[in-house]
Amino acid sequence: MPAQRPDLAPRPPDHRRGLAARCARIARSRPFEVAIVVLIMANGIVLGIETYPDLGAARPVLHGMELAFRLAFVVEIAIRVLAYGRRPQDFFRHGWNVFDFTVTAAIFIPGLHGDSAILRFVRVARVLRLVRFSPGLRTIVAALWRSLPGVAGFLALAAVTFYVYGMAGWLIFGSRYPEQYGDIGRSLLTLFVLLSLETLPDLIEQGLAVSPWTLVYYVSFVMITVNLLLNILIAVIVNSMEEARRLEMTERLSPDYDEDGDGVPDEVDRIALTQRLDDLRAVIAELERELRIDRDDGPGRARHHSPER
Amino acid sequence: MPAQRPDLAPRPPDHRRGLAARCARIARSRPFEVAIVVLIMANGIVLGIETYPDLGAARPVLHGMELAFRLAFVVEIAIRVLAYGRRPQDFFRHGWNVFDFTVTAAIFIPGLHGDSAILRFVRVARVLRLVRFSPGLRTIVAALWRSLPGVAGFLALAAVTFYVYGMAGWLIFGSRYPEQYGDIGRSLLTLFVLLSLETLPDLIEQGLAVSPWTLVYYVSFVMITVNLLLNILIAVIVNSMEEARRLEMTERLSPDYDEDGDGVPDEVDRIALTQRLDDLRAVIAELERELRIDRDDGPGRARHHSPER
Amino acid sequence: MPAQRPDLAPRPPDHRRGLAARCARIARSRPFEVAIVVLIMANGIVLGIETYPDLGAARPVLHGMELAFRLAFVVEIAIRVLAYGRRPQDFFRHGWNVFDFTVTAAIFIPGLHGDSAILRFVRVARVLRLVRFSPGLRTIVAALWRSLPGVAGFLALAAVTFYVYGMAGWLIFGSRYPEQYGDIGRSLLTLFVLLSLETLPDLIEQGLAVSPWTLVYYVSFVMITVNLLLNILIAVIVNSMEEARRLEMTERLSPDYDEDGDGVPDEVDRIALTQRLDDLRAVIAELERELRIDRDDGPGRARHHSPER
Amino acid sequence: MPAQRPDLAPRPPDHRRGLAARCARIARSRPFEVAIVVLIMANGIVLGIETYPDLGAARPVLHGMELAFRLAFVVEIAIRVLAYGRRPQDFFRHGWNVFDFTVTAAIFIPGLHGDSAILRFVRVARVLRLVRFSPGLRTIVAALWRSLPGVAGFLALAAVTFYVYGMAGWLIFGSRYPEQYGDIGRSLLTLFVLLSLETLPDLIEQGLAVSPWTLVYYVSFVMITVNLLLNILIAVIVNSMEEARRLEMTERLSPDYDEDGDGVPDEVDRIALTQRLDDLRAVIAELERELRIDRDDGPGRARHHSPER
Repeated sequence: MPAQRPDLAPRPPDHRRGLAARCARIARSRPFEVAIVVLIMANGIVLGIETYPDLGAARPVLHGMELAFRLAFVVEIAIRVLAYGRRPQDFFRHGWNVFDFTVTAAIFIPGLHGDSAILRFVRVARVLRLVRFSPGLRTIVAALWRSLPGVAGFLALAAVTFYVYGMAGWLIFGSRYPEQYGDIGRSLLTLFVLLSLETLPDLIEQGLAVSPWTLVYYVSFVMITVNLLLNILIAVIVNSMEEARRLEMTERLSPDYDEDGDGVPDEVDRIALTQRLDDLRAVIAELERELRIDRDDGPGRARHHSPER
Repeated sequence: MPAQRPDLAPRPPDHRRGLAARCARIARSRPFEVAIVVLIMANGIVLGIETYPDLGAARPVLHGMELAFRLAFVVEIAIRVLAYGRRPQDFFRHGWNVFDFTVTAAIFIPGLHGDSAILRFVRVARVLRLVRFSPGLRTIVAALWRSLPGVAGFLALAAVTFYVYGMAGWLIFGSRYPEQYGDIGRSLLTLFVLLSLETLPDLIEQGLAVSPWTLVYYVSFVMITVNLLLNILIAVIVNSMEEARRLEMTERLSPDYDEDGDGVPDEVDRIALTQRLDDLRAVIAELERELRIDRDDGPGRARHHSPER
Repeated sequence: MPAQRPDLAPRPPDHRRGLAARCARIARSRPFEVAIVVLIMANGIVLGIETYPDLGAARPVLHGMELAFRLAFVVEIAIRVLAYGRRPQDFFRHGWNVFDFTVTAAIFIPGLHGDSAILRFVRVARVLRLVRFSPGLRTIVAALWRSLPGVAGFLALAAVTFYVYGMAGWLIFGSRYPEQYGDIGRSLLTLFVLLSLETLPDLIEQGLAVSPWTLVYYVSFVMITVNLLLNILIAVIVNSMEEARRLEMTERLSPDYDEDGDGVPDEVDRIALTQRLDDLRAVIAELERELRIDRDDGPGRARHHSPER
Repeated sequence: MPAQRPDLAPRPPDHRRGLAARCARIARSRPFEVAIVVLIMANGIVLGIETYPDLGAARPVLHGMELAFRLAFVVEIAIRVLAYGRRPQDFFRHGWNVFDFTVTAAIFIPGLHGDSAILRFVRVARVLRLVRFSPGLRTIVAALWRSLPGVAGFLALAAVTFYVYGMAGWLIFGSRYPEQYGDIGRSLLTLFVLLSLETLPDLIEQGLAVSPWTLVYYVSFVMITVNLLLNILIAVIVNSMEEARRLEMTERLSPDYDEDGDGVPDEVDRIALTQRLDDLRAVIAELERELRIDRDDGPGRARHHSPER
């Protein structure tokens, strides 16, 4: 994974001065970034320690650290917003910035205080900011996410298969085993759990008590869905590796391409661009091959040497 | 997946007029197609809601909707049959059309009325028409289906392995554990469920009570079949991805190739064609390579052109 | 899979006459081959039916069919041995022929009569002859078998890992859980079953009762072995696909290559040959690339453009 | 795997004489190597036999063999240390040498005597030396190890996902199911075991008793982590196969490259070198392609034939 700097702040134009410029410099500096990552990890560890019931005297200390973390994160967001100078609204143009702001600011919503459930979840969500700060992780998440459209067809097919088998399961077993197949929701849940193959022996036995033909139902379901799911998983993996390869190659060839200072869409653009170039090249290659075969027929060009592979 | 239009109706020749031409135009129009997809999905949702027992006043409403769906589907089929003009029998030349007609017309078979079991299954089968209407899903199903011949050998080998192990299991355990190995049918079922590895600990314990040598039976069975099944699954996946790639590439190179208006065979033809081209290219490349080696030996031919790959 | 004829008999030289020639012709004829395959499958089905306890009047019929099958197989072997004329010992030079002879002749060993256990296994083993008669299956078995050397290193590593974990398990749990870890044999069995992940929750709970550090033992074992086993499985699959591809390609290029009339080694030879050719080609390509880079340095050839890859 | 000799001793310079030279010759000789491998395997078998409780008269024999193994291994290490002549400290510059020395010398530490637990583990650890002596196994372990950095991003993402789900699990179920989710440690253990899909049905049932929305928690966890883990596993496999391929290719092209006599780093260097060459070639090819497209625009070069790919 390329060591690509997360776009914590806009790239400061040379003529900008004063507080905004200073903040932008800080926000883009390596120490600032490292400090935030360390803080997030420390925050995660503190959250983990807090889950143990018998902490005794350590609990006030942990509470104090939590307050310190809040302060630090507020300062972090403040610096990064101030770095935008007179256009603070630009800060919210990037998805990750909005996420950063939300999980930091949620504490100050009046309704949330003390140990309310939502506040606890918000504090846990802060750990996800690690993904935001690590370019490698961000790339993986982007690659995985971008590989989903490629398997949309498989996912739709799996959904249709599930639904049809769920309905058929309700028709076959609904009245006899209402616990498992009482309605379409329970049917789908039973079939989802069946994918773990954990309940296969029990369900087959249950089915045999109804009719030997229910074997067809279970055997076909397991074979079709296991096949489809493996297809989906492997397609996701292959696609995401391909995306990552593309991204990395573009980067090596044009290292200063990502210097335009706009966060995630940057990578996505590059990927899309390379993909289009790849497509173009494939078409050209195909055409050239066709042409070459024709040209090889011509007598005057036989001496051109073109080594193989 | 390419945005390929499902062949809901024959492409109307310019000179055809009247009702048939109007129906063909409707049947090929985008709004018609979208409407049918929405109807099928709504029908599926209604079917799902009907599985819940406590619907009370909603049940008559759902029943009314079901009648409306039936009417809509009859109209759909009627339009698509009428589009064939004086040759309605051509409508039945495509597998999906027959399927569409069957699940729609089955309701009007005199013997089937009210809540008979078959009628319920027919109604669920309507949901499968989603596959028929989505070109992406149709391509995947076709690709998966077409990848089966490539693994026929593995499937046959798995079948022979299963049968031999089933017979051996009956010989070894038949008299002692009639529940699991009482006859060849139970043997095969026991071994199929064993593939989920769910029952492995129990069966091995059971086997050890007979003889430590039964370990050889179970360990070899698990190793051989898991290997064979993974081989089959991965071969299916690789083959179907290859098929999909071929299909997509042909489409990009000849986008108007599928304009001949005959449904599924169209894709299949294209795939077969590309495959044959690929084979041809491979053979040519191989031959060229052989020739090049020969030619390179000759002193006066060093400048001969040796194409790549 | 190529439609390659099983080498049921030596290719008769034109000058050979009489009984041997007639037998060779029969043994190589398509109807003979098909008849044997049908007989083997029918035999398998009869064996399967015999496993059901309540057959009543059908049992004598099945017994009669079994006798007929024996007779037919004896005739088959006789024809194929006679086809070798004055050198019947050549018949036994091929592994599959020996197997065919053994499972057919075993019935006539004096000690084996009626329903002895060995005889039953011999009868089941006859079903395996289906693999011998199907060229596709034979190729797959050969390819799978030939892919084993390529994963020998992984298998050895897995064996060492298993043994070390087995010994460690005996040291850690031996005295406390003699049932699972009482000696090295039980340890290895426990760890083998653990690979199905079926017993993971119970074993981890058991381990936690000893010490939380046993988690390291189980977690590391599962991670390392699952990784190694997947490596082995995928390497086997990739290797065997590669072997199959090679075999198929050689066949297409030289369809009459397998006309030398000696059974399995034929394929193996071809595979080895192609592999050596492939290696040679790779080395040549590598050398050409090196040379080309050198040549491109020369001034007189600067205009010859030879892109790589 | 290449038959590469493990570097048991420094390659003796021609001018070195006396004991050191003799020891170096012995240490590098094939019989020495084979003898050690046989001894290690025999030692492993004796260790395995010792785990069986009812050995009776055989136990003293086994104890005697153990003493003989110790002596043999001490002699082995002595020869290999002496081979370094006046610089015995060089012996410890290779990781495997240190490991060999440690597991052999540990027996002579005064505190360890008789059947102490640590001594038993040390004796088991000797079996791992098989990996050190087999070049194939060493290559695999090196390749697997070297493929880890390539999946570091995925591993980090999996760790973050686990931690966040662990915290969320504690928040949701902590008070209700303290056994499974009482603190972050238990949460993570529960989720790790859940990856075996063994406990999925029970946990889902448990969750449904709290709220139907817990389904989202379990379904999303299973889908995300199964996807991530398969990604990691397959990336490890692909990477390690790639490493092995590189290593093998370098070896074939430069068979005398590993003659510099320094153990493991040798391979690693070669892999890194080839990798860098590959990268270079890829970049050059990419540039050439770009250039070619430009050049093809020029009118005077139209006859330069440049087949792509």
